[in-house]
Amino acid sequence: MQFTAQQIGALLKGSIEGDESAAVDRLSKIEEAEAGSLSFLANPKYEQYLYTTNASIVIVNNDQQLAEPVKATLIRVENAYTAMSVLLEIYNQIKLNKTGIEQPSFIHPSAQIGENVYIGAFAYIGPNVKIGNNSKIYPNSWIADNVSIGNDVTLFSSVKVYFECQIGNNVIIHSGAIIGSDGFGFAPTEDGSYKKISQIGNVVIEDNVEIGSNTTIDRATMGSTIIRKGVKLDNLIQIAHNVEIGENTVIAAQAGISGSTKIGENVVIGGQAGVVGHIHIPNRTQLQAQTGLSRTIKEEGQKWAGSPAATYQVHMRSVVALLRLPELEKKVAELERLIKELNKGE
Amino acid sequence: MQFTAQQIGALLKGSIEGDESAAVDRLSKIEEAEAGSLSFLANPKYEQYLYTTNASIVIVNNDQQLAEPVKATLIRVENAYTAMSVLLEIYNQIKLNKTGIEQPSFIHPSAQIGENVYIGAFAYIGPNVKIGNNSKIYPNSWIADNVSIGNDVTLFSSVKVYFECQIGNNVIIHSGAIIGSDGFGFAPTEDGSYKKISQIGNVVIEDNVEIGSNTTIDRATMGSTIIRKGVKLDNLIQIAHNVEIGENTVIAAQAGISGSTKIGENVVIGGQAGVVGHIHIPNRTQLQAQTGLSRTIKEEGQKWAGSPAATYQVHMRSVVALLRLPELEKKVAELERLIKELNKGE
Amino acid sequence: MQFTAQQIGALLKGSIEGDESAAVDRLSKIEEAEAGSLSFLANPKYEQYLYTTNASIVIVNNDQQLAEPVKATLIRVENAYTAMSVLLEIYNQIKLNKTGIEQPSFIHPSAQIGENVYIGAFAYIGPNVKIGNNSKIYPNSWIADNVSIGNDVTLFSSVKVYFECQIGNNVIIHSGAIIGSDGFGFAPTEDGSYKKISQIGNVVIEDNVEIGSNTTIDRATMGSTIIRKGVKLDNLIQIAHNVEIGENTVIAAQAGISGSTKIGENVVIGGQAGVVGHIHIPNRTQLQAQTGLSRTIKEEGQKWAGSPAATYQVHMRSVVALLRLPELEKKVAELERLIKELNKGE
Repeated sequence: MQFTAQQIGALLKGSIEGDESAAVDRLSKIEEAEAGSLSFLANPKYEQYLYTTNASIVIVNNDQQLAEPVKATLIRVENAYTAMSVLLEIYNQIKLNKTGIEQPSFIHPSAQIGENVYIGAFAYIGPNVKIGNNSKIYPNSWIADNVSIGNDVTLFSSVKVYFECQIGNNVIIHSGAIIGSDGFGFAPTEDGSYKKISQIGNVVIEDNVEIGSNTTIDRATMGSTIIRKGVKLDNLIQIAHNVEIGENTVIAAQAGISGSTKIGENVVIGGQAGVVGHIHIPNRTQLQAQTGLSRTIKEEGQKWAGSPAATYQVHMRSVVALLRLPELEKKVAELERLIKELNKGE
Repeated sequence: MQFTAQQIGALLKGSIEGDESAAVDRLSKIEEAEAGSLSFLANPKYEQYLYTTNASIVIVNNDQQLAEPVKATLIRVENAYTAMSVLLEIYNQIKLNKTGIEQPSFIHPSAQIGENVYIGAFAYIGPNVKIGNNSKIYPNSWIADNVSIGNDVTLFSSVKVYFECQIGNNVIIHSGAIIGSDGFGFAPTEDGSYKKISQIGNVVIEDNVEIGSNTTIDRATMGSTIIRKGVKLDNLIQIAHNVEIGENTVIAAQAGISGSTKIGENVVIGGQAGVVGHIHIPNRTQLQAQTGLSRTIKEEGQKWAGSPAATYQVHMRSVVALLRLPELEKKVAELERLIKELNKGE
Repeated sequence: MQFTAQQIGALLKGSIEGDESAAVDRLSKIEEAEAGSLSFLANPKYEQYLYTTNASIVIVNNDQQLAEPVKATLIRVENAYTAMSVLLEIYNQIKLNKTGIEQPSFIHPSAQIGENVYIGAFAYIGPNVKIGNNSKIYPNSWIADNVSIGNDVTLFSSVKVYFECQIGNNVIIHSGAIIGSDGFGFAPTEDGSYKKISQIGNVVIEDNVEIGSNTTIDRATMGSTIIRKGVKLDNLIQIAHNVEIGENTVIAAQAGISGSTKIGENVVIGGQAGVVGHIHIPNRTQLQAQTGLSRTIKEEGQKWAGSPAATYQVHMRSVVALLRLPELEKKVAELERLIKELNKGE
């Protein structure tokens, strides 16, 4: 798709300097742009590129001064960064605006499918599944029996949703994420083997959640594993059975939350952090990357780090002291020597 | 499916108090149950909910005393917890009792398929594959050439089993798990690049193993990567080439075992633990979550923690001493000052 | 497929001792081989097995002396190890030499497919996709709109390649790997929720790259996430948006690289290591397993370890000192006592 400076200017309510018919068909960084590219300049550090860029159109702030002549058509707006964000969103909406049902796909006759949906080839929609309006189920996904999915949901290719799980509105789940596999529950027996504990709960994902690629969220043993509104989960995260994650909590890649732990709202958990089971993390807690948290935190809004975790200050004090430790050992040896001498001296 | 108190009571050999025709169609926690739910009370801590629950039927111990009137129909049994476990298992067996071959699926004419199997739509069964009786291959799975799968096996959606791998009886593998991808073997060359070492072994999974979502188990370079009877692997675990995991060993999510390591029986490995290659872990060893183990352990049955790993006692002593380290530094500075004074005093 | 000693000897330009018509149909370790197996002896440690093996054919070095009679047919070559590597490669090429387009598959009419390709059943090839010659797309893969894939590429079952990503020649990607899912980018809003930042860049994978099972590589926010020539990635690795990984860098399983970090050439990163965003790692750096690196490294070719990371020497010194720390505490307590006595003594 091609767009002209005139069209983009009208969309952004910007003013145009240069050729109104300049046309673009892609978005690029200003320093890498080729002819046919739309770029933007928001950070003054990059101003130099404005005079050398091959971009056909550049969006700039209204107050952008020009130190040299510019080859590209400029579109001046109140805030170039915000304007660009709006454009990116529109661009993505157009690009990802698939609808219709591709063949072959498998849709059980008892499934209820909303309007304006996309169901990709080789997607599997099981018995009694409900899918809302404007939702997109990409190829090779598996939506098992009795699952309900809201409106404006996107499940990219090969998302797997086990039986009875519930997904709200405006949810995005990336490829390979697994929702509702069995919790890891086994009872030891006398002969040293383990007996599986049936996992008959489900997973509930509320509105506006985004879940990254190959992340796994296990169903509850009984009841629900719950991901509250606005939670953002990165790739390759493990959420165990009966966990509850509070609103607007953000978790980075490869972190793991063990069974039955409850996490508050607006918590931020760094990459590769691990949280033990059956504990509570209060609102606005922050866990640094690779933290290993093994007990309930009581005070809200604190920053934690290390494994086993301590508050950030305590952790950093230990880290620094640890680096000085070989020196401390030498110093103690020297004191020992001095005291021996003093003792001799007496 | 609906069941009456009478039917459930007969199944559990329990005695019924209240309306024998009370019917349920789901299982719920006693504190969350709605009308139409079956619940149970095993833990005395939850007795209060017995008098307020909306469950239609509650299973209780024979000796459960009633402090207040109860609305629900009660079924009294010897052990309410065990009775509930039995019910959960039956419930799951009924729920997951799919059979038949859905279309479109791909079954190579040379494949041998047992009786009473389920093969979901978009499943791929390659040349010379053997699948035993009562096994279930969910949609979008890929069973490559010459794989053998035993009886009563469940592969959930999108399990991938590479060429020549062998899976025993009563095995459960969850969605997205990859069995038999190439081991990570490369030989450095003189120009700094790497040459792939062909990986021609396979993976052997014995009976009664359960494997979690998105876990990866690489094929051996030569010979077999072996997962022995009764092993339970959680989600997102990495098992490298030529690893051998002994009977009834349990590994929690996101742990990783490097190439050629041999793990004994009844070992327990915590989440996010990492084990280096070419070492041996003896029977009944326990590794705490996030442990980093880099050498062979000789004594059986010990508990290890930390990275690099130490025995649990040594590790905890270091952890505690580390927290006191900033204080120790102050103390040493004070001693230094005192000794200087003593020296001056002389 | 069966091969005789004569055929294999001709292929390897080796000399045959024993029955030239001895036939094999599989490759085995010499200590595990059964009749019908081909084995090799390169490591003198294993010479004992040469006299007891049931292998039908064994490849040995030209200068291999025989201390006892040997049952198997021997093929003598310059270098048994190299000869075996060559055979493994040929074996794998024959085994994995699928071609043709299986049905049902989904190939958009606008896609351009090269010669001699394999496209498995249930594979999805989207609009404007280009696939080069001799490439193999296994079942259940998803190649989204505008993706380009070079020659001699293998994507195993269920690889997912999002829109606009580019894959070079001779690339191998294992099952479940996700290429080009959205970067983890969200802007906080005033009400505590997060607004998604559209991710409109792509992923570029250059020639000779190998990527392991269930590894995830996110698309750039803008521009490209780049995996340079010859990079080898193990399983379950996370590569975030806008990362760049230099030529011939090798990363072990479950490591994670955060957004916008640039990694040089011939770097080696151990398993479960984590690297923070927006930093630079120079050529030939080595990070030990479980390292947590949170700042730019300046000098090339150094070895780092620990979390937070230090150079290997500094880290090991701290580790050793930490183990001695409880003892150091005792020593300081003793010095304290001595000084008190000295003070009293005055």
